[in-house]
Amino acid sequence: MEAYKNLSKEELLKLHKELNAEYKKYQAKGLKLDMSRGKPGAEQLDLSMGMMDVLNSKSDLVCDDGTDCRNYGVLDGIEEAKELIGDMIEVPADNIIIYGNSSLNIMYDTISRSMTHGVMGNTPWCKLDTVKFLCPVPGYDRHFAITEYFGIEMINIPMLSTGPDMDMVERLVSEDESIKGIWCVPKYSNPQGITYSNETVRRFARLQPAAKDFRIYWDNAYGVHHLYEDDQDTLIEIIAECKRAGNPDLVYKFCSTSKISFPGSGVAAIATSPNNLVDIKKQLKIQTIGHDKVNQLRHVRFYKDIHGMVEHMKKHADILRPKFEAVLDILDRELGELEIGSWYRPKGGYFIAFDTMDGCAKEVVAKAKKAGVTMTPAGATFPYGKDPKDSNIRIAPSYPSLEDLIAATNLFVLCVKLVSIEKLIETM
Amino acid sequence: MEAYKNLSKEELLKLHKELNAEYKKYQAKGLKLDMSRGKPGAEQLDLSMGMMDVLNSKSDLVCDDGTDCRNYGVLDGIEEAKELIGDMIEVPADNIIIYGNSSLNIMYDTISRSMTHGVMGNTPWCKLDTVKFLCPVPGYDRHFAITEYFGIEMINIPMLSTGPDMDMVERLVSEDESIKGIWCVPKYSNPQGITYSNETVRRFARLQPAAKDFRIYWDNAYGVHHLYEDDQDTLIEIIAECKRAGNPDLVYKFCSTSKISFPGSGVAAIATSPNNLVDIKKQLKIQTIGHDKVNQLRHVRFYKDIHGMVEHMKKHADILRPKFEAVLDILDRELGELEIGSWYRPKGGYFIAFDTMDGCAKEVVAKAKKAGVTMTPAGATFPYGKDPKDSNIRIAPSYPSLEDLIAATNLFVLCVKLVSIEKLIETM
Repeated sequence: MEAYKNLSKEELLKLHKELNAEYKKYQAKGLKLDMSRGKPGAEQLDLSMGMMDVLNSKSDLVCDDGTDCRNYGVLDGIEEAKELIGDMIEVPADNIIIYGNSSLNIMYDTISRSMTHGVMGNTPWCKLDTVKFLCPVPGYDRHFAITEYFGIEMINIPMLSTGPDMDMVERLVSEDESIKGIWCVPKYSNPQGITYSNETVRRFARLQPAAKDFRIYWDNAYGVHHLYEDDQDTLIEIIAECKRAGNPDLVYKFCSTSKISFPGSGVAAIATSPNNLVDIKKQLKIQTIGHDKVNQLRHVRFYKDIHGMVEHMKKHADILRPKFEAVLDILDRELGELEIGSWYRPKGGYFIAFDTMDGCAKEVVAKAKKAGVTMTPAGATFPYGKDPKDSNIRIAPSYPSLEDLIAATNLFVLCVKLVSIEKLIETM
Repeated sequence: MEAYKNLSKEELLKLHKELNAEYKKYQAKGLKLDMSRGKPGAEQLDLSMGMMDVLNSKSDLVCDDGTDCRNYGVLDGIEEAKELIGDMIEVPADNIIIYGNSSLNIMYDTISRSMTHGVMGNTPWCKLDTVKFLCPVPGYDRHFAITEYFGIEMINIPMLSTGPDMDMVERLVSEDESIKGIWCVPKYSNPQGITYSNETVRRFARLQPAAKDFRIYWDNAYGVHHLYEDDQDTLIEIIAECKRAGNPDLVYKFCSTSKISFPGSGVAAIATSPNNLVDIKKQLKIQTIGHDKVNQLRHVRFYKDIHGMVEHMKKHADILRPKFEAVLDILDRELGELEIGSWYRPKGGYFIAFDTMDGCAKEVVAKAKKAGVTMTPAGATFPYGKDPKDSNIRIAPSYPSLEDLIAATNLFVLCVKLVSIEKLIETM
């Protein structure tokens, strides 16, 4: 196959006609497929049904330390759960506070607390004229929604194959005291599936921010979400690295079991330095008497330990791997030589990010929609929903069945081809 | 028995000597009893163990409307749970948002949102010089802790046998635009067990606050927590009453199943007007993808409907009633005629409030502590922990066994007697 840019106008028009006929056929099928959100499929949810059996009316709901999980108390999580989550994110149990079901909620609360009460004695952000956040792009729309909601100015940082552009990050945080944080999904990033390189993590831990209350928001959402047992990305553990670099308080690390057990009924946690933990608990003890300990215990009894969780994640991988490979194979086969788009081959996580030619993403998503395939809205992966190049599209392969996914992806590549041809002709 | 105030100094000294000998005997016993917090006892927790069986690995975790509770989605709670909670608090399901496990957390988040984003388009409180809250006293320490944490100035409102002093409430809210809310526990109040009279509720619904963003924080924590089947307090439903009064947006109503199912593993909710719900959801959709639906479903499957919950609450009452009666009987018998203290006889809830003679509460609590009985710290039932009369002590009869409770209460009345005598002698 020839790259589209090398085709003549006539060739393009002819091709467009053929492809459009194909597109009409798809439209006639009345598809109703969704590749928009990173939701596990039903088969994945079935993997955790055993969790419904580990506690029953005969169970002893008492922790190792004698705490009755059924009653009030224990602000920061039961020890067994801290141990499990600690092993999951490679952090000592003592560095962890377990919350409710949602790590997003923890991130929101962290920003909200910084707004009203500041970070470790610094001025509350609501008293400042300007607060800014760095946003590696493309990134996670719900991160950006939180900072936008609080009126925090967002600055785009390009993602490279090694992670965020650290030259730019270093320069900006050292110059501008109003920059208070950066959103990171360091492993199998949302949406590209990039894992930050060792150098990137080392440079993060050695940042010298102008703002004393600058924190790295390290959303380790996909830490154990590998697709391959024998080919996994590795990531330097950031809390230990910050400690080694003499910056122990620089990072908040977030995680949850939402895509391990049940989304919405999992366990979420923050891990950070002792100083930050003290700061957080001052607020947390006002906000709640404690989170759901019975659910924490349920998770511990189900997985038993980190080995149990790792074995469980292999079953998720067995379901997800064919889906990712199906999408990537179609992209390779159909678009591999056309030079009208680019993408990474992630080894884990929940997404594939596709970059169209500049100015095509919105139109591709709209065209797919008109044939019954819902994608994440173009632009969603950027602050304020604005992709300056209008090129990034997030593909979420997890939720549809393999069959539906193949149909949806075939339609997607067709839409990419059609829109690209239209763009090329337009600029001829 | 003669009232202490009628005794001579010699009589008081003699009595003190006798009582003190008795106190020394208690001290020698090495008691370790806790009447400090409103925690259900283990026997009550056992009532809900069946909840661990209603969902198992063979269960269909799909809602009536087809929602798979195991996956992401549903911001405001599953329909079945809204129906159940609606019946529990006498509010239509459509007026409800279900949250996580803690109504305190909802109240905190409500204040926090008002600080950063304001209420229904009004100025965020963090942009105002002064924000004030009215606090009926004695009241719930954790309410006061939230407003204190946000730097909100708290104004004491005396509790009468009919509820808060409404003359004072009406005057203050109509005069002062900086008053943005009032903390209420309208049924079986914490700590007195008072239920607001019909007139009080009617006057609440007809408040004409100077501040457009004034809201009543109606913490209906003990709505179904009766001690007697045939002798229950009734409370006018506030949301409907506000609607009738032409003030539909005036109130936020909070509730949870913390003392129905498991504390910390229950379901909490807010109920309010459609306008307020829209305002809240704007924030909630940024804060989370959704709360724990599996736990919502677990509650619905366990109680089935409000009748099931009412039957369940009778079992709680059967356990709590003897405990409340034991404490009240000892107070009546030992202190009934001495004129050194007063208390209500609640028909529900979790507490008994005891008022010592002025200036005695701290000393009574300290004396009880020295003999091994922990009470809620004196002053805790007031904003800033300051009881101006130093007279209120909260008794929580639920957690200890009946035997322990009787021992603890006997010691408590002994401490009241001793401290009262010392006070009377001091002022002779």
